[in-house]
Order: sequence, then C-alpha cells, then structure tokens
Amino acid sequence: MTTTLIRGGTVVSATGRAPADVLVDGETIAAVLAPGSTLLGHDLAGSIDRVVDATGRYVVPGGIDAHTHMELPFGGTSASDTFETGTRAAAWGGTTTIIDFAVQRAGERVQDGLAAWHAKAAGNCAVDYAFHQIVGGVDDDALKAMESLVDEGVTSYKLFMAYPGVFHSDDAQILRAMQKAADLGLLTMMHAENGPAIDVLAAQLVEQGRTDPYFHGIARAWQLEEEATHRAIMLADVTNAPLYVVHVSAKQAVQQLAWARDAGRNVFGETCPQYLYLSLEEQLGAPGFEGAKWVCSTPLRSRAEGHQDHMWQALRTNDLQMVSTDHCPFCMKGQKELGLGDFRAIPNGIGSVEHRMDLMYQGVVTGQITLERWVEITSTTPARMFGLYGRKGVIAPGADADVVVYDPTGHTSIGVASHHMNMDHSAWEGFEVDGHVDLVMSRGQVLVDADGYHGRPGHGRYLKRDLTQYLV
Amino acid sequence: MTTTLIRGGTVVSATGRAPADVLVDGETIAAVLAPGSTLLGHDLAGSIDRVVDATGRYVVPGGIDAHTHMELPFGGTSASDTFETGTRAAAWGGTTTIIDFAVQRAGERVQDGLAAWHAKAAGNCAVDYAFHQIVGGVDDDALKAMESLVDEGVTSYKLFMAYPGVFHSDDAQILRAMQKAADLGLLTMMHAENGPAIDVLAAQLVEQGRTDPYFHGIARAWQLEEEATHRAIMLADVTNAPLYVVHVSAKQAVQQLAWARDAGRNVFGETCPQYLYLSLEEQLGAPGFEGAKWVCSTPLRSRAEGHQDHMWQALRTNDLQMVSTDHCPFCMKGQKELGLGDFRAIPNGIGSVEHRMDLMYQGVVTGQITLERWVEITSTTPARMFGLYGRKGVIAPGADADVVVYDPTGHTSIGVASHHMNMDHSAWEGFEVDGHVDLVMSRGQVLVDADGYHGRPGHGRYLKRDLTQYLV
Amino acid sequence: MTTTLIRGGTVVSATGRAPADVLVDGETIAAVLAPGSTLLGHDLAGSIDRVVDATGRYVVPGGIDAHTHMELPFGGTSASDTFETGTRAAAWGGTTTIIDFAVQRAGERVQDGLAAWHAKAAGNCAVDYAFHQIVGGVDDDALKAMESLVDEGVTSYKLFMAYPGVFHSDDAQILRAMQKAADLGLLTMMHAENGPAIDVLAAQLVEQGRTDPYFHGIARAWQLEEEATHRAIMLADVTNAPLYVVHVSAKQAVQQLAWARDAGRNVFGETCPQYLYLSLEEQLGAPGFEGAKWVCSTPLRSRAEGHQDHMWQALRTNDLQMVSTDHCPFCMKGQKELGLGDFRAIPNGIGSVEHRMDLMYQGVVTGQITLERWVEITSTTPARMFGLYGRKGVIAPGADADVVVYDPTGHTSIGVASHHMNMDHSAWEGFEVDGHVDLVMSRGQVLVDADGYHGRPGHGRYLKRDLTQYLV
Amino acid sequence: MTTTLIRGGTVVSATGRAPADVLVDGETIAAVLAPGSTLLGHDLAGSIDRVVDATGRYVVPGGIDAHTHMELPFGGTSASDTFETGTRAAAWGGTTTIIDFAVQRAGERVQDGLAAWHAKAAGNCAVDYAFHQIVGGVDDDALKAMESLVDEGVTSYKLFMAYPGVFHSDDAQILRAMQKAADLGLLTMMHAENGPAIDVLAAQLVEQGRTDPYFHGIARAWQLEEEATHRAIMLADVTNAPLYVVHVSAKQAVQQLAWARDAGRNVFGETCPQYLYLSLEEQLGAPGFEGAKWVCSTPLRSRAEGHQDHMWQALRTNDLQMVSTDHCPFCMKGQKELGLGDFRAIPNGIGSVEHRMDLMYQGVVTGQITLERWVEITSTTPARMFGLYGRKGVIAPGADADVVVYDPTGHTSIGVASHHMNMDHSAWEGFEVDGHVDLVMSRGQVLVDADGYHGRPGHGRYLKRDLTQYLV
Repeated sequence: MTTTLIRGGTVVSATGRAPADVLVDGETIAAVLAPGSTLLGHDLAGSIDRVVDATGRYVVPGGIDAHTHMELPFGGTSASDTFETGTRAAAWGGTTTIIDFAVQRAGERVQDGLAAWHAKAAGNCAVDYAFHQIVGGVDDDALKAMESLVDEGVTSYKLFMAYPGVFHSDDAQILRAMQKAADLGLLTMMHAENGPAIDVLAAQLVEQGRTDPYFHGIARAWQLEEEATHRAIMLADVTNAPLYVVHVSAKQAVQQLAWARDAGRNVFGETCPQYLYLSLEEQLGAPGFEGAKWVCSTPLRSRAEGHQDHMWQALRTNDLQMVSTDHCPFCMKGQKELGLGDFRAIPNGIGSVEHRMDLMYQGVVTGQITLERWVEITSTTPARMFGLYGRKGVIAPGADADVVVYDPTGHTSIGVASHHMNMDHSAWEGFEVDGHVDLVMSRGQVLVDADGYHGRPGHGRYLKRDLTQYLV
Repeated sequence: MTTTLIRGGTVVSATGRAPADVLVDGETIAAVLAPGSTLLGHDLAGSIDRVVDATGRYVVPGGIDAHTHMELPFGGTSASDTFETGTRAAAWGGTTTIIDFAVQRAGERVQDGLAAWHAKAAGNCAVDYAFHQIVGGVDDDALKAMESLVDEGVTSYKLFMAYPGVFHSDDAQILRAMQKAADLGLLTMMHAENGPAIDVLAAQLVEQGRTDPYFHGIARAWQLEEEATHRAIMLADVTNAPLYVVHVSAKQAVQQLAWARDAGRNVFGETCPQYLYLSLEEQLGAPGFEGAKWVCSTPLRSRAEGHQDHMWQALRTNDLQMVSTDHCPFCMKGQKELGLGDFRAIPNGIGSVEHRMDLMYQGVVTGQITLERWVEITSTTPARMFGLYGRKGVIAPGADADVVVYDPTGHTSIGVASHHMNMDHSAWEGFEVDGHVDLVMSRGQVLVDADGYHGRPGHGRYLKRDLTQYLV
Repeated sequence: MTTTLIRGGTVVSATGRAPADVLVDGETIAAVLAPGSTLLGHDLAGSIDRVVDATGRYVVPGGIDAHTHMELPFGGTSASDTFETGTRAAAWGGTTTIIDFAVQRAGERVQDGLAAWHAKAAGNCAVDYAFHQIVGGVDDDALKAMESLVDEGVTSYKLFMAYPGVFHSDDAQILRAMQKAADLGLLTMMHAENGPAIDVLAAQLVEQGRTDPYFHGIARAWQLEEEATHRAIMLADVTNAPLYVVHVSAKQAVQQLAWARDAGRNVFGETCPQYLYLSLEEQLGAPGFEGAKWVCSTPLRSRAEGHQDHMWQALRTNDLQMVSTDHCPFCMKGQKELGLGDFRAIPNGIGSVEHRMDLMYQGVVTGQITLERWVEITSTTPARMFGLYGRKGVIAPGADADVVVYDPTGHTSIGVASHHMNMDHSAWEGFEVDGHVDLVMSRGQVLVDADGYHGRPGHGRYLKRDLTQYLV
Repeated sequence: MTTTLIRGGTVVSATGRAPADVLVDGETIAAVLAPGSTLLGHDLAGSIDRVVDATGRYVVPGGIDAHTHMELPFGGTSASDTFETGTRAAAWGGTTTIIDFAVQRAGERVQDGLAAWHAKAAGNCAVDYAFHQIVGGVDDDALKAMESLVDEGVTSYKLFMAYPGVFHSDDAQILRAMQKAADLGLLTMMHAENGPAIDVLAAQLVEQGRTDPYFHGIARAWQLEEEATHRAIMLADVTNAPLYVVHVSAKQAVQQLAWARDAGRNVFGETCPQYLYLSLEEQLGAPGFEGAKWVCSTPLRSRAEGHQDHMWQALRTNDLQMVSTDHCPFCMKGQKELGLGDFRAIPNGIGSVEHRMDLMYQGVVTGQITLERWVEITSTTPARMFGLYGRKGVIAPGADADVVVYDPTGHTSIGVASHHMNMDHSAWEGFEVDGHVDLVMSRGQVLVDADGYHGRPGHGRYLKRDLTQYLV
C-alpha cells in the first residue's frame, strides 16, 4: 500500500477552507493534519512513500459528474465517447466519479438494461462509476424490477416527460413510478419538458421550412420546460416522492423549483455548464449548420431573456443544488450531420465531462460563486444527493482518496486540439480558464500530474450507492 | 501542552458524518484521523495525555450562540446573568462561544459602549466570546466610529426598528448606517418590528385595561414584524448592504426573507428555540401573570396560525440559516414583576443559553431536522455568518479544539432545579430531551464531563472576528 | 307587441344601483327612465299594456348559466333533465339564458355533435339557449370543423384534461386545438384535472376496498386540479390562446389563475355554488352511499383546508370572474346507484340550475359579495365572457327584455318537494335563502310571477354568440 | 329647464357599448332610449329643445379626475392653475368633475384647511368639484376633526410617507389615522414613498454635485416606493382600513398591490398618464434643466426597467383601478427655475388635467386597453371609488347630465400653443391623439362644442361625496 502526503495546500470544503495536509494510505484518506509533517513528535515523513507539494494550491475532493451518457444510443447513432474515452477525459479534468445512465425502454427489462450498461463499463473505466437507471417503459414488470435497484446500488432512476415514443412516460406512468420510488427510497430524476407539445411545434416548424438548429430551441419553448417542471413537482407532491430535475435551463423552471422548495418540498435541480455560459442567440443560432454542435435538450436559452444570469443566481441561492454536464458527445461528421435539413434528426448532446471543474472554477474567478460553493456544487452535493458521501465528496479520514490539486494561478485553454474527449469539435472552443488541474488522484492512485496521464482502463470501480443523503 | 485523543465517535459536520478520531494538541485540533490510534505504523497512544472514549456518541463542534445579552440594562433592571454565570451555563449546555451585544445609545459614544462591554466580560467568561455592536443612536459620530469596528474584531452591528426612545433608528438613520456598513463590510443585524406602530397599539391596550402579558403578543402583531422585515430588506437593497434579521418569529416574515433570497439578495435570518416550541396561546397566555416568563420581542406567536411549524420548515429549507437564543434572562421576582398591571413594563427576555444545543437536538429526534443540519444551524453557520469559521464551527485541523461529545442515548430534563443560569424560573420547565451533552471542551480544556464542571472564569478569551464568510 | 313598464324598483348593474323604471316594448328594452311614468310631459302610462310594480325590489338582468349539461350521456346513463325540464327549472330560478355543451367524441364529427344538440333543444326550451362545443376527439377533422363554429354562433369550446378514454385530450391535442382557437377567436374552456393520474389513484382506492363516494374526492386530489390548471395556462401561453377554466374548486388552482392574471394573461375561471357552500367532509363524506348525491368533478373540497372561503374571496377579487352551475343532474334511483360498490361508476353531476341566482344572492345577504357583484357574476360577466353582451347581461335599451324582479325581503326554501328539476333529491335540501325571485321575464314575456309559471317549451330561442367580449 | 337629446351615438359603459339615445332634462339624464326619437308612439322631438347629433361618436360619462392640486402652495410657490383656469382646462378636455385636495399641515386645524379650499374654489369652477382632505399633521385635534369630514362630504383623506417636515406622517401617526378612518368609513389615500430615506439620498447627490433634474429620479429609487407601498398595505391590514395608493409608478409597487389584492384586501391604486408614457431617461433626463418640466413625485421611471409597460398591464388586469392626473402645474419661468442648481428645490408637479381623457383614449387606439376600460378607469371607477357613483360616472337616468361626445375619427394635437392650462410649457408637447372631444356637457349645460367654450366660473358646484362604493 502506497502512502502519500499532500502537503502545503489549502483544503477546501463546502463550508470553508484551511491550510492542511492530507495523508493518504492506500486507497483512502488516513488523516487530515495541521500543516507540517510531524504529529505529536512522530516524524511522519519517513513513513511516507510520496509527497505532493500543494503549496499555493487548493486541495479539493475529486469532481463527481452525476449526469453522463457514455455510448448512449440516440437517434440512430451512439454517443461518441465510450466509457474508456469518456472517463479518461473526466480524469484529465479532475472528475474522479461519474454516474452514468443505464437504459430501459418500453418492452425491455430493467435488469437487462442495467446489465448491458455494466457490460459496457466494466474494465474500461479510468475513474469510479455508478449508475442511475432510466426507466423508459413504466409497466408492471418495470415497477417490480425497481425493487431490486437499491440492492444493486442504483438508488436513483430517471423518467422522461420528453421524447414521446422513445423514453416518454405519461402522467399515469410517472405517478406509479413515483409511488414505487417513494416506497423504496429511490430518488426520482426527471427530464422535465412537455414532449408531446414540443413534438407538435417541432413538426410545424419543419413543415414551414424552419429546419436549422436554431429552431430546435424555438420548438422547445421555455414554457414547456416550466410546465413540465411544475407538473413533476405536483406529481411528486401527491406521491410524497423526492424529486430531482435534471439539466434545468429556463429561469421560469427555476422559479418553480424555488416555489416548491420555499414550501418545504424535497425538490432539487441541477444545471449544466452550457446553460450558464452559452445561449440560443450566440451558439444555437450560429450561421448555417454550425449550431448543431449545441443541440441538446433542454436547449440553450435566450441571453436576452436572462436565463444564464438566473442560473448563476440560482446556484448561489441553492435553488439549484449542483452542476452536472449531461455529457453526451456526438461528432459533427456522421452524427450531428444526420440532422442536416431537419433539426429533429440532430443527435441531442454536448460533450463537457472534461471541462466541468474548470468551467465552474471560472465562476469563482468572475465572482459568480465562492470557492466553497465550487466544491459544494461539483463534488460535495453530488455525493450527498446520490448516496456517495463519506466515500466521495469530501476530504476526510476514511474517504476514498479522490483528490484534486487545483492551481488558481494556472491557466487552461479549451479546444478540440487539446481535449481528450472523442469528439471532432468542442462546444467550448476558445474558452480560457484562469485555473488549472495540476494533479488528480483516484483512490490513492495519481491519474494525472505534471508528467501527464497515468491512468488506465479498469482502475475505475463500480460504486454501489446508498440512498440519497440530501433530504430535509 | 496537553494532548487528547477523542476516540471512537462519529464526527458530524454540516455536510455529513463519519467515524473518526480527533487529536487535540494544546488548544487546537491537530488531526482528524481514521479510527484507530496508530498512524502509518506510529503508535500515537503513547504520545497522548488523555483519551476520551466517544464510542456511540457524536463528536461535534462546540455550539456558537450568536445572540446573547449578558447583564443587559433593560427597562430599569439588568439581565440576571452576568458574563460569569451566563457563560458557565453556556458551557454546561455545550456552547463554547457566545457573541454578545455591546450597547451604544443616542448621545453615547460607540467606543465607550464597546469598552464597557469589554470591561464586563474580561476575565469573567468560561467560554470564548465576541461582540456585536448595538448602534442605538445613529449620527455622524456613531457612523464615524463604525469605521474602527472591523479592527476591533466587531464585524457586525445591530439596529432596532423597535423600541422608540431607547434603541430605535428611523429609516434615514438605517439608510445611513447600512451605507456605511456596506462600505466597511460590516453585517447589519436588524430587530425588525415596527416600534412606533407597536407602541400605539400597546398604549391603547393598556388604556383598555388589557394589561396582562398576553397582550404583549397582541400589540406586537405579526403584520408589524412582517412589515419591518420587508422594509429592512428594501433599505438593504438600496444600499447594497447584506442583512441579517434577528429572532424571526412570524411565518410571514420568513416569507419575506424567502422572497428576498429567491431574488439573490444577501438576506439572512435566525430564529430562536422559543419560536420553534412555545406559543402565544400556551405560554404567553398562561393564567394570571405567569405569562410574563415568556415576554420577549419579537413575541411568541399563535400556534393556531402555524408559525412554529413554519419556523421548523424554514430551518429545513435554509430560509432561516441558524438558531441563536436571544438569551436575556430576568427573574420573576423583582424583575418581570415590574410589569404587573402593565405588560409594557415587563423586561423583555427569555433565558436559553444553556439549552440551545439540547433543544435543537430534540428536533433531530423528532425528525424536524437532520443531524448534519443540527451541527450547521448551531455551530457551522454561526461561525461562517460572523467571521469565526476556521477557528470555530468545524472539527478540522487547525481549528480551536472546541468540541462537544453528545450522547444520543442520553437524556436531559430541563428545569429551574437543575439549570445553571441565574434565574428563579425556567422558560423550559419540564422539557425533556432525548440526548445529553457528555463532554464539553474549549480550546483543549475540558469544561464539562461526567465528573461535572471544570471550567473557570477567565478561561474564555475575546475573539476578534473576520468579516462574514457567508455572503454569496 | 306588448309593452310593459317595470316601475318603482332599483335597477342594479355590475357597477351600481339606482331607482329607475324599465320600459319594455315587445321583446326588447325600449328605455330606462328616471322614476315616474311621464317623460317630457308625455304620459307614457296610457301607452303601456302592463305595469309591473317593483317597489322595494331589485330589477336585474336575467341570469345566464353558462355551464349546463341537459340530457348529457354520461357513464351509461343520461343527465335527468331534458332541455324542457331543465330550462323550465332555470326559468323558475331567474335564469333566462343557458349555455349548454354540444358533444363530440373521438371518432365522431363535430358537426354531428352540434346538430344532435340542436335537435335535442329545438322547440323544447323555456328560455334562450346557446351552445359551447365539447371537442372530445381532437384530430385533423375536428380541427377543420372548428373553423365553422364561429359562423354557427358557437364561439367557445371545451377540452378535457380529465376522463381518459372518454373526453380526454393529451397535451399535443390541446396545443393544436388552442392554436386553432387562437386563430379563430374561439375561447378555450378547460376541465382542468389530471385524468390519467386520477384514474391510477382511483383504481388503487377501489382495489383497497375504498369504494364509498368519499373516495371520489380523495382520488381527485387538489394537486391534480392545480397541476392541470397550471398546465393549461402554459399551453395557452405558448399558443397565445385565451383560457377559461371551468368549475374551479381548489384554492391552489385559484392561486395559479391569479398568478397568470397578475402577469397580464387572458386567463379566466368560473366556480359553482357547490364549491362555495358544500364540502368533502360534510356532503361527499355523508354516511353510506348518501354522498353520491354530491359526486361531481372537480370534487367538493375539504372545508378544513379552506377552499370554500377562498372561492368566495376569489369571487370578490375577480380572480374568479363568474359563477355557473355545471348543472348535470342524476337521480339516486337508477342513476347514482350505478356506483354502489365503486365510486368510479357514480355518474358525475349536481343539479343546481334552478338555484344559482338565489344561492348567490345569499352571498350578498351574508356579506360575501356586493349586490352589484351578484349581478356581475351571474349575468353581466357571463354575457361578456361568451359574446352575448348587449342582448343579454344588462338592463339597457336595445337589450333583450330578460329581466328578474328580485325581492330582498322574500324568502326561498330549497328542496326536492318544491324544486322543478327532474331529480329525486336535491343537493341543496334544506337551504334557506333570504330573498325571492318574484318575476322572471324573457324577451318581454313573463315566465314566472306571483301567479306561477307562464312559460312554455319553444319560447326559448337559439342564440348565436359573438366572440368573447371580455379579453384585455 | 332645457331638454337635450343626444342622438345617434354609441353609449359606452364600463361593461359594454350599444347604440342609444340619451335624453337630458334639465341637469340630469331623464332616459336612455333605444335609437330613434319616438317612444311608444310619442314623438319626443317636439318636446326637446336641442338635439345633439352623435352619429359615429362615443357618448361617455364625463371624466372624473380624482387627483388635482389647483393653487397648491408647494416649495415656496403655488401651482399655476387656479380653480378657474384649471377647471376650464379640465372642461376643454372632457373632464367634468375634479376632486382636489384641501390641505392641513402640522399645527393647523383640519377645518381651517378645508374652509380655505372651499374659499379658493367657490364661485370659480367651470365643472363640479369635490375635496379630499390632506392631513399633514396627525394629532389628537386632527383625528377629532376627521370625524366631521363625512358630513362635509369629504370621505377620503390623504397621508404622506414622503416629504418630512412638510406633509410627512410617521408610522404611529399613520396607524392612528387609519384606525380613525376605518371607524368612520373614510378611504385612506397614501403617497407611498419613504421620505426620510429619499431625503438622505437626495442630500448626498446634491453634495456630490449631482444637482440636475435627472437625479430627482435617482434619489427617489423604486425600492423606496415599493417599500412604502408594502408598509402602507400592512398598516392598513392591521387597522382593517381600506387603502388607495396614489400616483403609482414603479412596477414593483404594483406587484405589492397585486399581492395584497390576491389576498382579498381592499387595496387600490391609481396611476397617471405620465407614468404610462414618459420616462426617466427620455424626459427627466433631458439635457440641461429641461428635465425640470417632468419633476414630479413619484418620479418618472426607467423605460429600460419596463415600468411603463407594467403600468399599462396593471390597468388591464385591474391591479391598478383608475387613472388620475396628479395635476399640479408649475411654469418653468419663476417656478421650476427655483431648482436650478438643486433639484430638490424644483416644485414637484406636472400639468395634465386637460389631456387625461385624450391620452387614455390613445391607449384604446394602440390596443393597450379596451374602449370600455377607458370609460371605467377615467370615470366609472373614480366615481365608485370616491362615492360619486349614481350622480357621476355613468350614463343612466337620474345621473347628472355630465356627458362627453368623443369622436374616434377626430384628432388632437397637444402643446403649449393650444392648451388651456396656465402653464408656459407642456409636459406633453407634440403628443398626437387619434380622437377628439367634440362636446362636453356638465349637468345639462354644454361647456364645449364645435363653436368653442361656453362655460363660466361658478357653474361648477361642490359635491358632497358618499362613502366609497368600491369595497369588496
């Protein structure tokens, strides 16, 4: 067992920061110590295999990206990152845990979906991974199968109010699933967009010749995200089921979450970097077919309407609790291009798993969030929300030694030339971040340092998750 | 320097809990360690002076009561606890830091008020203490004097919208003080009740012969707390000053805070145990003059109107951030009795400094809040809110070794026969708590353990506070 | 042509009251005159066929019940009032216009539905009548057929979010219908309850043996009315379609309407007498099967939760604009009894068409609404809302002479023994009203006076309605 | 007694419009008739002295401007319109009733103030007039004096939260006055701005050299209007006093009114044409001292912040009930100029009494409000709000024959060259209105027609008002 001392840095938690040394023994953190390598007169240095000098840097818990879609089949193609390439990119960016989505569709067995995703991931991951379960076909069998999810360590599942004919659940299905989830303690995740209404609008736009990527954003009007969010809240209220709304992008949807939370309901929401930085006008509305790079659902929203500023505000006020990426990469060539002439055929997704920690740190630099809040929304709350806290999400004895040493004086330039995701473009081309991931450790193993990448497929293990630790 | 190992317990923070040992070296925490007394093969036991067995117990940061009034002159008498008796009682109850209020009134110098409170406290305190500054007479001199408060370690000050002729500031004064505070980084604390309106109603009630303590609660209608809360929020908005509303008791006032916070404003609120447990009908409306025990401002609110449930809810939703006591004890004999025949002459105040940790823990037992939230609202957030975090409010290396070992299988009965406050009655007589403060440590010194009290006047030191660490 | 002078009364409008005489010439009002039967020296008396002495009474526009279901096929039976019996009862109660619902279901033609209702009504009505169109099967044909409705004088249509498999429209259908309606100027009426969710809950209750009428109210939880109301508002927002929500009963649904209206949206709501006076606990929860009398949808709501008081308040604040009955009578014998052992099989409906004017006047007596508001919510606003104003809803020259003389010193006892509806019970048995309908005139013909009933089937004519006159 | 028949027009009320003739007999309306000059065979024409042809025009009740300040002493000068010039201008513009404000200040007797205003007005007015009472010095004497106001026909009074040292009441005074008003049935009118806070900001701006008229708008921040509005609402709630907020200009203040009204409170608000059309940036921020023309309080608001649009919306939603002018004219020369170098010394006020009917009609033309709403907010609601309905505010038999014939095909150009107010400039210079006041009748006397002005000082009579007729 290797021992490591991360020395001289500032350990940052969700509530504060302090100079401290972190002692790693094997895969876990053995101690957090006042600075200096002696303890009660014992010179620890002699017992330590490796010392990491973190002077002038932040020592933070490894990032947890709770929303990724590696190898997801979608629209006749599949997300371009495998678990191997995607988790390697995650590691490069300081994310040491991902939670991906196993998929069940109507007519399929939940168990089979989960098994299929285990098969895709096992032996391929550079960082630890866990699963949510998509239940795309709620029926008696699926409801029965949900009963075994907790034992499998899958303590959250996702329903879709969007995508009729693919993943969509109607309100009767949602109600039944939520009832079951409330009984089992599962956290219900919701893609909250009114799919049936959106599909009508999208078809009308295409019929009118409005086929460019931009109209993807027009069809998916904010009203239809707001509406679905409210509906999900009320169905959750009737069933007493905690609710977690994924990829919130409309300020009016946030207002619904805030309203529910002010009333004491267990309602939560995540947003993604794209909803904080990018917009309908600038990216989705780029000339020609360029906007296809940013086709994702929920869509990028209008900057003129102020959604982006409101997302930042909601992160500050805790009306949104955390930031995931909804990483779902597709190349332009051969993938996004499927939607030339019909935006509905563009595979939905943006790739960001590598950049989340950096992009959110830039929010610290610009004063949008505090340093502590950065740790909270990228690691601590994801861990608590999804039943990983204790092992993950915190620098504390007993926790897995998933540690990032982050340099606030460093710099990171983002682009397709340097990124490690399996994509032929970057949604973040040209973004400059005033900080840098210097070292990434996963369960005591250094995956990334100044010498480059030391990770390997198969280092990452499957994480059985506990029930959510975030409820009030 | 004494070394102590607190072994075998569950360390609880604002975000989670884990088995861990806490190593204290002198006055501070030297390390938090994975359970077991060896580290990297070093047997620490031999270097440790004292081992505390915390098996089966919670190890939490010492309580911080951010709102006390020791020896406060009020209504022709003074609060019955001195700094000596009050801080001893605090220690008994697991509170290792208090923040008391130095007083300046119209015509007095701020510096003199602060000096007077230093004189009262110095050498007398059993636990560490800090000061807020009451500015009861905002004028050019007082505004000028505020400029030196930060250097004095007094980074928050209180204004009163209540008590005309005593502490009251009008809106012009509030505006000017908030402008100054915003410049300096001081946190504005507000007693938010419309005093001029209340005084009219109170005089009318007395004129009508409605002189019993109950009418104290009628005169101080919730509308006048809600109104003042809104006004304070808007004056803070105009001046860009962060705002902290003290002793919130009306649900409608909480709704104003929630509204302001949803809009991204730096607006905070505390409540007190009395507003969570006690009511207008049951306590303030007790027969005869009995209700005088519970005369405090803001007043106890109607249970039929649901204020108490809403306070608990707001603690869960973080629309209220923390719990202080507003400890301001008066004996019935010779003090509360001053108001026989006229509720206006009853000294305002309830004594709770000893019981806050227990009373709030009971909320964990009854499922109102989580264990982590208990730590957050009694210690971590008070520390962050008032610039003490790092030294206080957390179990982490480098922090002051202010530690409470709390037994969830213990029991505490509250009453005048057993309490340590200098009062001839208890506002909490007969309350039973399903938990017990087993050990209290302040900067490495055990103040309370199974053998009783080991503290002494003068152990407690004055704490210069940093600027608030809680702003978004 | 007969001439009538209604003399000596107080004419009441939506905005005020004044002593005035009303001169009727043939079917319409010829003049409203200052009291006294001379005009510019002309002695009108000699030219008048009949003088009605209205001294001490209110002279108000005839009531308009904008929501009735005569002969509606429902649940294997039909509403027990024909157009003949139902409109006669309406006349007795001072209602001189009804707007009933023609029905189209999935697979049927809209035109056929409308024609069928014309056939039921023609020649049978005692008072004037108009139609809304139920579109229970939105498809291309139905949407096309909507285009001719305006010409037919049917300027409003109803969709159902409840009753899957019967009338239910999904959100795609609602969106398309609203788009069409917005183009045409049709007013969209909505039964706003989440039917798919309700049906799941109802089936579960029955499975649990909870089959009594009371559980009808439990299955149809307020959350599912609130949700559907919000959804309807947002779909209306996306399509720019005015929206009118029928039979609102939950206070939270009203809050959604108020929210939408505060934002300037053309969103309206009606409530019904049953939601103002009756409750889940008292009526629907009556012992045994008795509660079946009050099975209607939306259901009666809990008085403990305060819905009834909120409906009155919303009538005062104009968050609800008018009161209809949703008259849909079923006898206990042979009809309501179909649901013995399964509340789902109880035909939904309450009969009130005869009592609306009296029941709402009682709200004037008890101070819930003003006299002017009584006229507004029972006649003037229904006329404006549904494009009848000018002909109906006002005492003014040129308007149809639909006039009620109402005696505020009279008295009305309601019950099965005296009512004129074709029902074997009364939902209002034992209600006493401090007022009395003394005289009812429809287009100049006296239908009811002290001598009894003078109406006849066929007097009532079909009214082609204009577009709504209520939009902002 | 002269008789007049206004023939061929469209009579418009608050609820609808219809072709009708209006028969005037002496000072009042004798009848409203179906078009045509015969009635029951009686040829009325022969008995009529004068026929007005209103073909193609609207016949509406004369305008009621419920907020004027003729000859008001303010800031060392007096409003430039006397009752003679001001009411003549009103008549020109179709306003046949004004309600002006009698003034009492601290140290003065209410009775004296009222008597003084009677003296100013008596014999000088071209149109009927009434008074509100300003109570600028609430004390025991003033409260006692309020008891006789109802008998004097003064059923509303105004308090100021602005203007410390001039009209300002503190919260204790407001509370006492509201209690008295609630007892007496008086309607409390409120100038809702936080004067003490504004005065601090204004003084600071001047000290910084920011002395231009623009800074008048900066000092009077919307937050301080919103705050005072909320405060007034809560003080009204505590005293159960109906509340009417004058000259609302901030959208956030409207939101407070809407919030109060949604909760069923009797809370009302007026806005003024300047807050609908003019802005901080365009008018108040005009170069040099030009902006002084538009210095009024509350101030013009920022168009970028959207206040103007929100005022229109609130007029549509009835969150604001009516439009008055707050007519308080000052000439630039010798009056506004007093504030050269210090905006605080600019007399506050804009002159609009002549243009209100036209300016609001332009809102009909542009689709902001309906024709009926125009009548409602300019005449019917002012009459109901202030106890004049029946005599004023409606075209109905028995009402005073205050009638305006308005030509929707006419045109009106506004400017100093053509207006009749005693001002050396116009706040509305260059405004073009697509409509025209063709004829103005006051109590049967034609004041204005195509031949010009026929009015005279002394025609206007003092109106004793009833209690408000608008409460719910």
